[in-house]
Amino acid sequence: MTSKEAASAESAVAEVDAIAEAAANAAGAWAAMDLVVRARALDGIAERLDAHSAELIALAVRETHLAVPRLAGELKRTSFQLRLFAQVVRDGGFLDVRIDSADPEWPMGAPRPDLRRMNVPLGPVLNFAASNFPFAFSVAGGDTASALAAGCPVIVKANPGHPELSRAVGALIDEVIDECGAPSGTFGLIFGRDAGVQALRHPAVSAVAFTGSTAGGRALYDLACARPVPIPFYGELGSINPVFVTPEAARARAVEIASGLLTAVSSSAGQLCTKPGLVAVPEGAPILDELRSAAAPPTGELLNDQIAAGFAHAVEPVRAHPQVRTLRGERPGEALLLVTTAQAVLADRDELMREMFGPATLLVTYRDAAELLELARSLHGELTVSVFGEQADDTTHGLFAAAARVAGRVLWNSWPTGLSVTYAQQHGGPYPATTAAGTTSVGTGAITRFLRPVAFQSVPDELLPPQLRAANPLGLPRSVDGVRAQ
Amino acid sequence: MTSKEAASAESAVAEVDAIAEAAANAAGAWAAMDLVVRARALDGIAERLDAHSAELIALAVRETHLAVPRLAGELKRTSFQLRLFAQVVRDGGFLDVRIDSADPEWPMGAPRPDLRRMNVPLGPVLNFAASNFPFAFSVAGGDTASALAAGCPVIVKANPGHPELSRAVGALIDEVIDECGAPSGTFGLIFGRDAGVQALRHPAVSAVAFTGSTAGGRALYDLACARPVPIPFYGELGSINPVFVTPEAARARAVEIASGLLTAVSSSAGQLCTKPGLVAVPEGAPILDELRSAAAPPTGELLNDQIAAGFAHAVEPVRAHPQVRTLRGERPGEALLLVTTAQAVLADRDELMREMFGPATLLVTYRDAAELLELARSLHGELTVSVFGEQADDTTHGLFAAAARVAGRVLWNSWPTGLSVTYAQQHGGPYPATTAAGTTSVGTGAITRFLRPVAFQSVPDELLPPQLRAANPLGLPRSVDGVRAQ
Repeated sequence: MTSKEAASAESAVAEVDAIAEAAANAAGAWAAMDLVVRARALDGIAERLDAHSAELIALAVRETHLAVPRLAGELKRTSFQLRLFAQVVRDGGFLDVRIDSADPEWPMGAPRPDLRRMNVPLGPVLNFAASNFPFAFSVAGGDTASALAAGCPVIVKANPGHPELSRAVGALIDEVIDECGAPSGTFGLIFGRDAGVQALRHPAVSAVAFTGSTAGGRALYDLACARPVPIPFYGELGSINPVFVTPEAARARAVEIASGLLTAVSSSAGQLCTKPGLVAVPEGAPILDELRSAAAPPTGELLNDQIAAGFAHAVEPVRAHPQVRTLRGERPGEALLLVTTAQAVLADRDELMREMFGPATLLVTYRDAAELLELARSLHGELTVSVFGEQADDTTHGLFAAAARVAGRVLWNSWPTGLSVTYAQQHGGPYPATTAAGTTSVGTGAITRFLRPVAFQSVPDELLPPQLRAANPLGLPRSVDGVRAQ
Repeated sequence: MTSKEAASAESAVAEVDAIAEAAANAAGAWAAMDLVVRARALDGIAERLDAHSAELIALAVRETHLAVPRLAGELKRTSFQLRLFAQVVRDGGFLDVRIDSADPEWPMGAPRPDLRRMNVPLGPVLNFAASNFPFAFSVAGGDTASALAAGCPVIVKANPGHPELSRAVGALIDEVIDECGAPSGTFGLIFGRDAGVQALRHPAVSAVAFTGSTAGGRALYDLACARPVPIPFYGELGSINPVFVTPEAARARAVEIASGLLTAVSSSAGQLCTKPGLVAVPEGAPILDELRSAAAPPTGELLNDQIAAGFAHAVEPVRAHPQVRTLRGERPGEALLLVTTAQAVLADRDELMREMFGPATLLVTYRDAAELLELARSLHGELTVSVFGEQADDTTHGLFAAAARVAGRVLWNSWPTGLSVTYAQQHGGPYPATTAAGTTSVGTGAITRFLRPVAFQSVPDELLPPQLRAANPLGLPRSVDGVRAQ
């Protein structure tokens, strides 16, 4: 048994049960923790990650084949994200405190009672870690940060691609949870597919976050819905992230766009949920020659054998399609660029519009603006849609309208990779991009997934939760009688 | 064929398809409608309901057996609710506009692009109307009001209990939709169980709202999740709405509490989703005598034969339970009060803690505060939990903590019936009370169910939706760089 096999040994059934029960028992205490302490715990995990960055990055390199600069950037993003959620917790806006004062003249026709509402945590969250971001979408990643910030215990089902790193990060989280006085069940780590399914079915688990493939995600979604007590499943499944290059942009910026695309498809070996997988360019435009001949960054190795096999499996039918030819990328280590026509895609959508998770993209040539718009209007749910254009005109307006209908994020002259963690970010989209289009898994909005409102009616101050009392010593933002807080 | 049978004739398959496709085709135009026009449409429906109140109430009396004062109050609530959502639309806060300005020094480690996010409508909403509120939870009820306010077309699956009223209200909505210049597909009405299932499976439908029984709701929820493209299902299924009367309150206010309970269980013939179905009182307390002998309002007839049969079916096993006795209500037209012990309920939860939709409640006697708390801690998801007490002490604090864990609304010395439509209202709760504990179906928060965020990255002003442009001519509330709008 190698050390990797040892580290990823399946969690035993009794162990998973014990972890789920510990999470259930921890839920009340973690939810009741002072917001300042909860924020400090998130900051503490960030500090711990930063302090151990050298050893964590070394572990990640060994387990994922990703390059050091990429991993260092990702780790920085991860600790930043934890600190951003600490800010969100301190701010308190996520509680969405609403107060209706009693109103005997309420025009509904009956007196309005005193009603005070706030968000409370859902309970233990099960987080299926992703392979491609061993820090930012894994053990201490966005789903863990936002669920802990919401006041929920977290059970991470480790990704089998980086078990040692998962254990190391998990141990750091455990230390911080312990130091801040929270019950140890506030955080748990389990390994193995069966353990993940067992946890998902455990009555103690209240919500699931998942980042991975459409097939795997859908299977788990179905299990979550089929429970005796169904629970919300926030799954980010798969996305093609179409890019539409208008004739004008292709003419004006062929070199720049070709170079940008080659970088977006090659970096992290194309293993990004926002990698552009379909790029529409005008038929016969010089941009195709540019894409064929421009210098392309090396892709690097894929994360692991399973990902490599999945990539080959996804690419094969597209490459073998009678109306697809290979533009470049027959050599390993170089991004694969395939070419077809818009007509072919429109005629054979299911075969040609599918995610190839790895360094490949399908170039789609269109004859005119009408065909470009037809292609845009044929899309299903996507995380992102990008438009490269020169000006606002009928075509770009049409593309934007079509994009906003199906995507969570719409970009102008920008590549969808390099997702920023911010207040206004939206990383989510209609199915199959996600199973919950109304939510985001990146950015401060991610916390809302793990909350539910509770209203208190005619309750005297001393029986109310502190956040709803008259005094508001924490200065929480509140909406009073329908008027937003200042 | 009676006129009721004619009015409720099943919609044909082709008709349902046509209505779903019309809704899909209307979605873009309705979503793009100026917010002022959208608000005016909601106000217009309210005006139309008020103007036709006499004939609508006459129809409702004929079809539901509910009393005129109750129906008149409900209609007032319904038009008020439409006007409240018109206000919500004009305010624009529901768009949750967030703007991040570009920031080259964003501490994440990479420059932050200009990101602008707002909520957009999900698309056509299918609304299964309820039997017990022929106005407020039916054709022009809260789900229709909040979905139209969100910018979604609405297809109502009429409740078979009041088909003529459904058609009459639907015709008024049609008129208003037409007058405000929206496509007629913005509103549709279908009849029959099969038609409902067909619509739920139609690819054009984007979300479902449901109010009804746990069995029926769960079956539809399962279908919504099993679609090739799953859609959110906002179901309000069933709730017992437990009430805990402390020994002190039972002693101090036996007469008042007994009278309040008899009213809460009898009014609208107990056919309310918030009817108290389990009431814990101290063993041997005078309140039991009071409940046995106090004057009780007549319950009136049940809505229809199907509801009456369902009520008999739900009551029978509880009444026949060896540890349950009947306190009062053997005569028709009088609320049925059954009695058992906390020990019996704790030992046989599944048999004794179940919704009896109609004028019945189960009184549960407890021996001491510890048993009362044990009962409270054994609850599953509920819409409401009420506590009657005299002061804040260990018992009431314990009851409140247990209540907030399982319920969407927690009340003090108040009955859960008579739900107020307000900003801070929460009508929802953990399963089986609802299938989506994070949402509410009553109050201004109900609009969020039918929205999803879209972010625009690095998009020039002229290509942005008007709500996200620099100028903000509508004065929409916005959060900028993480700072809430004033």
